[in-house]
Amino acid sequence: MAKSIVLGFSGGLDTTFCVKHFQDKGYDIHSIIVNTGGFSDEELKKIEEHAYKLGVKTHTAVNAIENYYDRIVKYLIFGNVLKNNTYPLSVSAERLVQALHMAEHAKKLGADAVAHGSTGAGNDQVRFDMILNTVTPGIEIITPIRDLKLSREQEIAYLKEKGVDMNFEKAAYSINKGLWGTSVGGKETLSSNGFLPDEAWPTQVTKTEPEALKLSFVKGELCAVNDQKFDHPTKAIQYLQQIAGPFGIGRDIHVGDTIIGIKGRVGFEAAAPVIIIKAHHSLEKHVLTKWQLSWKDQIAAFYGNWLHEGQILDPVMRDMEAMMTSAQKHVTGDVFLQLYPYRFQVLGIESPFDLMSAKFGKYGEMNSGWTGEDVRGFSKIFGNQVAIYESIKEDQQGKES
Amino acid sequence: MAKSIVLGFSGGLDTTFCVKHFQDKGYDIHSIIVNTGGFSDEELKKIEEHAYKLGVKTHTAVNAIENYYDRIVKYLIFGNVLKNNTYPLSVSAERLVQALHMAEHAKKLGADAVAHGSTGAGNDQVRFDMILNTVTPGIEIITPIRDLKLSREQEIAYLKEKGVDMNFEKAAYSINKGLWGTSVGGKETLSSNGFLPDEAWPTQVTKTEPEALKLSFVKGELCAVNDQKFDHPTKAIQYLQQIAGPFGIGRDIHVGDTIIGIKGRVGFEAAAPVIIIKAHHSLEKHVLTKWQLSWKDQIAAFYGNWLHEGQILDPVMRDMEAMMTSAQKHVTGDVFLQLYPYRFQVLGIESPFDLMSAKFGKYGEMNSGWTGEDVRGFSKIFGNQVAIYESIKEDQQGKES
Amino acid sequence: MAKSIVLGFSGGLDTTFCVKHFQDKGYDIHSIIVNTGGFSDEELKKIEEHAYKLGVKTHTAVNAIENYYDRIVKYLIFGNVLKNNTYPLSVSAERLVQALHMAEHAKKLGADAVAHGSTGAGNDQVRFDMILNTVTPGIEIITPIRDLKLSREQEIAYLKEKGVDMNFEKAAYSINKGLWGTSVGGKETLSSNGFLPDEAWPTQVTKTEPEALKLSFVKGELCAVNDQKFDHPTKAIQYLQQIAGPFGIGRDIHVGDTIIGIKGRVGFEAAAPVIIIKAHHSLEKHVLTKWQLSWKDQIAAFYGNWLHEGQILDPVMRDMEAMMTSAQKHVTGDVFLQLYPYRFQVLGIESPFDLMSAKFGKYGEMNSGWTGEDVRGFSKIFGNQVAIYESIKEDQQGKES
Amino acid sequence: MAKSIVLGFSGGLDTTFCVKHFQDKGYDIHSIIVNTGGFSDEELKKIEEHAYKLGVKTHTAVNAIENYYDRIVKYLIFGNVLKNNTYPLSVSAERLVQALHMAEHAKKLGADAVAHGSTGAGNDQVRFDMILNTVTPGIEIITPIRDLKLSREQEIAYLKEKGVDMNFEKAAYSINKGLWGTSVGGKETLSSNGFLPDEAWPTQVTKTEPEALKLSFVKGELCAVNDQKFDHPTKAIQYLQQIAGPFGIGRDIHVGDTIIGIKGRVGFEAAAPVIIIKAHHSLEKHVLTKWQLSWKDQIAAFYGNWLHEGQILDPVMRDMEAMMTSAQKHVTGDVFLQLYPYRFQVLGIESPFDLMSAKFGKYGEMNSGWTGEDVRGFSKIFGNQVAIYESIKEDQQGKES
Repeated sequence: MAKSIVLGFSGGLDTTFCVKHFQDKGYDIHSIIVNTGGFSDEELKKIEEHAYKLGVKTHTAVNAIENYYDRIVKYLIFGNVLKNNTYPLSVSAERLVQALHMAEHAKKLGADAVAHGSTGAGNDQVRFDMILNTVTPGIEIITPIRDLKLSREQEIAYLKEKGVDMNFEKAAYSINKGLWGTSVGGKETLSSNGFLPDEAWPTQVTKTEPEALKLSFVKGELCAVNDQKFDHPTKAIQYLQQIAGPFGIGRDIHVGDTIIGIKGRVGFEAAAPVIIIKAHHSLEKHVLTKWQLSWKDQIAAFYGNWLHEGQILDPVMRDMEAMMTSAQKHVTGDVFLQLYPYRFQVLGIESPFDLMSAKFGKYGEMNSGWTGEDVRGFSKIFGNQVAIYESIKEDQQGKES
Repeated sequence: MAKSIVLGFSGGLDTTFCVKHFQDKGYDIHSIIVNTGGFSDEELKKIEEHAYKLGVKTHTAVNAIENYYDRIVKYLIFGNVLKNNTYPLSVSAERLVQALHMAEHAKKLGADAVAHGSTGAGNDQVRFDMILNTVTPGIEIITPIRDLKLSREQEIAYLKEKGVDMNFEKAAYSINKGLWGTSVGGKETLSSNGFLPDEAWPTQVTKTEPEALKLSFVKGELCAVNDQKFDHPTKAIQYLQQIAGPFGIGRDIHVGDTIIGIKGRVGFEAAAPVIIIKAHHSLEKHVLTKWQLSWKDQIAAFYGNWLHEGQILDPVMRDMEAMMTSAQKHVTGDVFLQLYPYRFQVLGIESPFDLMSAKFGKYGEMNSGWTGEDVRGFSKIFGNQVAIYESIKEDQQGKES
Repeated sequence: MAKSIVLGFSGGLDTTFCVKHFQDKGYDIHSIIVNTGGFSDEELKKIEEHAYKLGVKTHTAVNAIENYYDRIVKYLIFGNVLKNNTYPLSVSAERLVQALHMAEHAKKLGADAVAHGSTGAGNDQVRFDMILNTVTPGIEIITPIRDLKLSREQEIAYLKEKGVDMNFEKAAYSINKGLWGTSVGGKETLSSNGFLPDEAWPTQVTKTEPEALKLSFVKGELCAVNDQKFDHPTKAIQYLQQIAGPFGIGRDIHVGDTIIGIKGRVGFEAAAPVIIIKAHHSLEKHVLTKWQLSWKDQIAAFYGNWLHEGQILDPVMRDMEAMMTSAQKHVTGDVFLQLYPYRFQVLGIESPFDLMSAKFGKYGEMNSGWTGEDVRGFSKIFGNQVAIYESIKEDQQGKES
Repeated sequence: MAKSIVLGFSGGLDTTFCVKHFQDKGYDIHSIIVNTGGFSDEELKKIEEHAYKLGVKTHTAVNAIENYYDRIVKYLIFGNVLKNNTYPLSVSAERLVQALHMAEHAKKLGADAVAHGSTGAGNDQVRFDMILNTVTPGIEIITPIRDLKLSREQEIAYLKEKGVDMNFEKAAYSINKGLWGTSVGGKETLSSNGFLPDEAWPTQVTKTEPEALKLSFVKGELCAVNDQKFDHPTKAIQYLQQIAGPFGIGRDIHVGDTIIGIKGRVGFEAAAPVIIIKAHHSLEKHVLTKWQLSWKDQIAAFYGNWLHEGQILDPVMRDMEAMMTSAQKHVTGDVFLQLYPYRFQVLGIESPFDLMSAKFGKYGEMNSGWTGEDVRGFSKIFGNQVAIYESIKEDQQGKES
């Protein structure tokens, strides 16, 4: 009986090559595509047709959008995660969900092997390898693109020889789209200096007049946009993306540390993610205590980095999710914003849990809760240790001189 | 002999009141104003005339701009400090330098008392109290505004009775200007929802065409702007502010935790600080290792908060400054930006210490430093512990079910 | 109608003084004692008799032992909390539970005021003040001992005048006993150098022969000692204390930062707490991943300090408890120890979740999970960034010289 | 011309095998042994004779004791580094110095290759690989023991065939000795439960009577023991080891995470390191501020782990060393201890920088620096935010119910 292999399949050159390659090796091929929000039904249909035409035994398209949100995106919002203070982890995060679904599929089918089309030069190979090693420990991982190190031209020649008919042109910019943003790579991102030109961005800027925006959160989750309610936050995110995308908001270049130790740059456009995170953070500044804000920041910085490095299955991630979820108890309220071309402004918030409640006095005005004498005492005690430190230091300096 | 008092003096209503009040009490008054970049020579001259006209014994104006940079601002740049990811600590930081200079002045004069004009409702009282308690522990601190709790009208009536002639009108927005930004408070910042209107911002937006900008750093310090070199970074900052201010860049509202536990909002405009921090951080992303970036972030977050709370004299701040200074060893290079109305974009960097050197392979392309097999091995080992964890968990779940 | 006051009452000199003092002021007095494990039924009965004899209107004894464990001690174990790597927070923690019960009592009775007998020199005043300010914000807090600053002799004279008959002798060492340890203060702890003499320790050393000990944990909680099971962990703790106390284990002096900024020393004996924490930590080292251990340590260090400073009601504490609880999921197993006079040794552990499972190869022996080649690849990639850093540094040094 | 190879050489079975193996391959062999305090002159002489007898071209013995201290051990003391709160990193740390000296030697000789005798099962291979990859990037790394995976018996057979005459008996316990402690591995440490028997420990317990001990530190470094001064701290450490070793102090088993992801146990005896760290920490508790203690703990925990994982060349380590060094400015004074069989007790400290100075009031007694009213005010403000939080929470709960 032929050995079976599960293959992560996008329909592009590399994974098309893999299908033919594994046919040569005599495998029964089960292609799978995991949609995290980047593919339309039409695109998925075309990919399926392409797969079957190539000769796969089965093809599976998994709608993982809600699962992606529930497992990952939700916590990226809770943690206001922007890697290096910039990047919402658009691609890093979705790769993990894709790998997890691939692994489950291979397990279910009892496959002999599982394959991904990663090259040997990026982060994705590590993410796929690690999750497959962990979830399907007995199953061989095969990575023809990484191992054979063929050039684009060699792959095309091979496919033409096999009679494959597809678009072999290389796009000027490589695009990866998902629920949590779209990455854009091209020649400008290959060096340290240079910004992507207007035509490189998938979403063109068509809105020029400012628009008001209202986002409503319940326990940290986006539940309504401009008072329109949604039954799942993924729909609110997608709706917001439609509103804000044409402003060109959330475009930037991320400079970061790859898992394999080199630095890399990647462009991205992520209007909805960037707006949601900033709005959510603004709300938190009003409802969380000082130390909740501080500790959540620390935890989330690690959480984002560790996720980026593919370590989603480390149980420390569950511990951190428990902490971040606990902190969302009061993160309920409305955030008011104004959208402009290429930028946006948070105007303010309203929340029943707002700690800046007028009830307890306004900043800059006296109130009935405490007195100037209380603060004088506070200052005395709050500065006590350092005053002692300085006094002892001066004593010693006096002795030494 | 009359008792002497050192009084922090801005020439405004509150500190003018203090002069007359202390005269009534029979003090010899030594007024002092510490300039951290917010006052022109002309303004300082007017304040001096006002002071002597009120009858102070001596008046002193301290030019603390460079000292302010050397002691504080430098480290805010090293740490990319934006409180709550927004606010460059414009006012918080300069209050500390003002208090330190006041305390030194009181010490030098052998004053019997020292006074500040803070109310009982804000952060500044704590900052002044703590630093005075520490640096001049034997000298009485007197705070008439906090203690007497007079209304604006009562103060004016008292001053008119004393024959004081000055502008008693209240500005619609209270403005505080310094080297590291200008704060703006008004009715919109007193509640949680509402943004400052255009007319509230001290610097009006007069530039509409994009401009290219080049910032050059040496060991983390800004030494040139558009290739113009300066003998002290404060001059580079002021020059940049002239260029970028008229774009309306760096305007926002900060929501934060006051030292006294309530939440407060304050508007600010800080074109130069916000651009410098973002540019400096971009450079760091290219020249620091992953863990340097990560730990400096953690340290700097605490450093900024602790500074905000007035704890500049805690020796832990010296320890953190040593760490941040060590991390700047390679933060040398040029950052290229584009300025637009209300926003700016970092385009890229050039640095001899850039770790994204083409020499070691480009992200997304294979190179000679390592092989796909190396990464396969790395993934195996990097995911080892979690793979063991999952396997044991599954074994136990199998037994339990 | 007379005003009513709730008074925290231990029956000692200070709180006895308070009863008489409030009677003079015309209050109806409701005394309350909150037992966190330090009082026997007999002692509680004597205190009650003493209270009624002094003339209180009602006296209430709250058995808070289990509540104390559920609310605080449990998390001190989860976090392996030893302040400054030494002190199990014996007294700090129980004060908070006492204050919380006092506040609830005052609320229930609708009291006009609430009183505690703290002096103005220690931590306890802050803990009581803060919790009362928070839980019973409208009710006046009265602290006669702090406010009147009477000497011991003055208090005694006053009580004798009032006809109070009690033991007025001062003990050489002040002892405070509870479920989580006993503190001991005396002349040796008032300076920086000096250890408590044998006679100062409440529990004398009577066991000289080594004893084996087995502690069994389920999800981080102690459920059995030497295979004897208990229906609540507090009973296991008390049972262990009986076994280990007579060895003189867990005696030390804690040097720490008080909430009011000065340094202080306090002796303590805490056999059960110290053994439990060390055993629990040993188990965790086997069942938690590297980053679970690391992050729990960081979280717990803050948790312990913040609790020590009385901030138990900050919601960040709930967030941290959620994180620590999540981390306990696999902390199940047996810990084997040996007890000796003044010390103990952890011998090893057994757990179904032990990650040091023989199944995955033994440290120092090759196994089937990975190869030397994998590790060679791992080392290559794991050291990649620093190798790049060094190479660039050398290039630049070459150019400079 | 023959190719040359630098070989880390201890004279044991594995590295003796390597010499013969490389001779077979036609290499000129340059053996090197780096002494970090574990070898006597006599032992070094025997190893040298053995090397030349085997036929190495040159043999080099590096005395790295002081360099080891200056580069690593000093910071382990500054940071009070005990991995997992137990292990002074005895072996982990010295491997790095050994690798660094090997790499420098290979560079100096212009060797074609460098070899270490690590197996494929432990941490050391990663440490050697990474440092060699970084410091001698062009030079091939050869690891015959890891690659050939020969059994002990196969190695012996090969050596006998080559006419090598040496002691081929296997010790029951593998011992590794250095300045900062001795590790002990044996059958008890291969499983999770079991303690090393008395005969396994290299230093036998011969002292039974308590001894007083005085350690004197200057800026964090040990400069005198019992008032005897030393010109380098390494000598003080060795002197202390002679005094304390025969008490059996500092014996324990470390359970830790290896770099390759599995858990491992190793016994160690480290009397001087454990005593020095505890004494140093006790002194710090008196002279550092609260936040200095807290941040140094966090930094040092990472520093120790990252060192353990071989990352000594990451520049973040230099940043942390700068911070820790800054914190040692006041860590000057004497620490008084008592040594007993198997344990010791810190009795107290004396320091000119002691913040527990009687000058500022004693804990538990009132003083002139502040009043009970000051503390009442402090408590009010210190608890302000949480009081606001609770009040708002109650309001909302009221509305909801």
